[in-house]
Amino acid sequence: MNSVIQAQEIILAHSQRLGIESVPIDRALGRVLAEDVAANRNHPPYDVSAMDGYAIRHADTAGATREKPVVLKVVDDIRAGSVPECAVATGEASMIMTGAPVPDGADAVIRVEDSRRRSHKGEHSKEEYDSDVDIWAESPPGDHIRLMGENLRLGDTVARAGDAIRPAEVGILAMVKKTEVAVYRQPTVAILSSGDELEDIHEPFDVAKIPNANSYTVMAQLQAIGIRPVVLGIARDTPEHLKEKLLEGLKYDVLIISGGVSVGHHDFVRPTLKDMGITMHFWRVAMRPGHPMAFGSTEKTSVFALPGNPVASMVCVEEFVVPAMRKIMGFTKLFRPTVEAVVGRSVKDKEGRMHFMRATLEKGADRTNVVTSVGSQSSGILMSMVNADVLMLVPASSTGLNEGEKVRVQLLVGSDFQQQPDLEI
Amino acid sequence: MNSVIQAQEIILAHSQRLGIESVPIDRALGRVLAEDVAANRNHPPYDVSAMDGYAIRHADTAGATREKPVVLKVVDDIRAGSVPECAVATGEASMIMTGAPVPDGADAVIRVEDSRRRSHKGEHSKEEYDSDVDIWAESPPGDHIRLMGENLRLGDTVARAGDAIRPAEVGILAMVKKTEVAVYRQPTVAILSSGDELEDIHEPFDVAKIPNANSYTVMAQLQAIGIRPVVLGIARDTPEHLKEKLLEGLKYDVLIISGGVSVGHHDFVRPTLKDMGITMHFWRVAMRPGHPMAFGSTEKTSVFALPGNPVASMVCVEEFVVPAMRKIMGFTKLFRPTVEAVVGRSVKDKEGRMHFMRATLEKGADRTNVVTSVGSQSSGILMSMVNADVLMLVPASSTGLNEGEKVRVQLLVGSDFQQQPDLEI
Repeated sequence: MNSVIQAQEIILAHSQRLGIESVPIDRALGRVLAEDVAANRNHPPYDVSAMDGYAIRHADTAGATREKPVVLKVVDDIRAGSVPECAVATGEASMIMTGAPVPDGADAVIRVEDSRRRSHKGEHSKEEYDSDVDIWAESPPGDHIRLMGENLRLGDTVARAGDAIRPAEVGILAMVKKTEVAVYRQPTVAILSSGDELEDIHEPFDVAKIPNANSYTVMAQLQAIGIRPVVLGIARDTPEHLKEKLLEGLKYDVLIISGGVSVGHHDFVRPTLKDMGITMHFWRVAMRPGHPMAFGSTEKTSVFALPGNPVASMVCVEEFVVPAMRKIMGFTKLFRPTVEAVVGRSVKDKEGRMHFMRATLEKGADRTNVVTSVGSQSSGILMSMVNADVLMLVPASSTGLNEGEKVRVQLLVGSDFQQQPDLEI
Repeated sequence: MNSVIQAQEIILAHSQRLGIESVPIDRALGRVLAEDVAANRNHPPYDVSAMDGYAIRHADTAGATREKPVVLKVVDDIRAGSVPECAVATGEASMIMTGAPVPDGADAVIRVEDSRRRSHKGEHSKEEYDSDVDIWAESPPGDHIRLMGENLRLGDTVARAGDAIRPAEVGILAMVKKTEVAVYRQPTVAILSSGDELEDIHEPFDVAKIPNANSYTVMAQLQAIGIRPVVLGIARDTPEHLKEKLLEGLKYDVLIISGGVSVGHHDFVRPTLKDMGITMHFWRVAMRPGHPMAFGSTEKTSVFALPGNPVASMVCVEEFVVPAMRKIMGFTKLFRPTVEAVVGRSVKDKEGRMHFMRATLEKGADRTNVVTSVGSQSSGILMSMVNADVLMLVPASSTGLNEGEKVRVQLLVGSDFQQQPDLEI
């Protein structure tokens, strides 16, 4: 039987990028770039002020203090987006706004906070250019000046094919005015549940039936990584209906079948999959929960057959489907992050299969990670996933873990936030 | 001047939930529940099998081994969703599928792997019910049986107002057939840039202008936490145009103004904000980058005025806007997660303001977190955010950090994945 790692390797070997599409910048977040992007301009286009203040010659400020300010003559008022009207000579200053071009002659900028204009009335009117400014800070050369091309240099590659597009990359794309960008295509994904015992969310209540939760946890797990899957509903336990639903599902890049493939369950499932041209690569994985997890493929479609137990289904999505989808989407970082923790309460385990125990992670004394099982590990108890925020990774060789022992823990929450700002050490 | 913490407190005090709306289950992920949800059924509705196998009386399996299996008479075939046709008496077994009801008389289930049916032909036909099954595992009472209500108990609260909706919660909602669910309303958010120096992404190229990246980084940072903001474009540097754009922006729950509020910049901005009925609560924060960060409010709208430098803008969104939006959306966990790390390369710093240094985080020897500055911390260099994955939190009191010193680090990537599965300790 395949280990978790072996099963992941088989699945990833069958999971390849699907080609390229173009998306507008406001839909690029969370995708992976499929082209290199070069800077289309120098930015700043010339040396500009980094502050609101006065462009000066640094030598003129030598010895300036609050008690003994130097007095300079204001000769210009340069706004961002405008052009200097004159150069700055010795004994002169040009008022300058953040982002405005530094005039010829000036080699530094004094912050407005380190100055006082002698006349404040009509500060922006040309008539006042002959007013003076007191400056009480000494300036090193180049101070508060951003050099041409410091942020972006014309022709430089600013983003590469394969880069994940985060907010900073969106900003860079905007900066080089890429309104449309080539990204790897998202997979189309269909979710199919199977079994006469299931009652779908819109069906009338039947006490004997089991509510179909799995289609919706799988849907949400995929939504959480940016995929919008289609829920195909429930295939009933006849070869004809299953075939009809499988045919629909095989139109997608990825078909996820929930339930119906465990050993001995509905003998028609396996032959039906074969009839439909699906080559199954494995039927089971040495894990708990998730043992009856199968994977197959056609020319076009990857087929995941998940266990019917809701927790097992969720764990298999995290361990197998998510990494495969991430690879298809072009990411190189495929797996949920893990951290080291110490066991908060001893747990027993059976040897032979890797166990993904639902658990919670907390900070113990001296900020150590402490992981504690949520209790019942029955794979039918979806509430155990509600109560968990991590999976405790108990190796296949383990017969249990003692309190205080170290263990690796996998985080499940995709977008991590915490309760307190916690800014200091 | 307010510290970062003080500024956060002021902003959060003005950030309140906006009321409740109903969303369909397939759009519930990432929202916060605004109602308690109770189980509408017992699940399982009665005792059911946890495996495919045989429902038996455990006493009948005493002493069973592979060499000396016990032989039981098969009297029924119980599928999930069906009802047992007869009870199990001593010496009898009923074939049973996962999720099928355990028949009267039986008190345990033997896995199909621990059995062999004497006749395999026509296993599911009624004619074969008098066939026998060899069982070679001893069963404890209750084995592989899920008890009525073990997963969900009728009337129990399965999710509470205030719970963040993750995939497991979506599953629970599906299980209790909540097709629509009450959640806290998302804020409507408008993003406005200001300044004659800006060139928008769709405008013709002008070498003298600065590309408007900030509207798009802010957009993407909000998208990353599930908000779909509206980009209003650029307010030009006249009171009339600014007023017109502000009027538009004040129709939203949140207005984010990028640039245009630094000291001395465009004297008309402050009076215009006042004219529009916006009460400003602070104009600056003791931080680097992000110093000229202002916050105000009207009766209806929270107004963030972000610094014009792209990195400063991004940092202020993470530290101030994201927590506020999370609070408005009903979350209790508001802040980006932080971890402890050791400094990989000494950095100098000026006292007086908390510094958010762009940096990268790597695993050093023995899995220690090592944080290294990306180099230039100029707040105009957006590429420094592209190259960073964390912010190194240098306290206001620090004059620098030495290699090997401990420091707190804030993670910026909302959805954390890693390159390798890294499942073992």
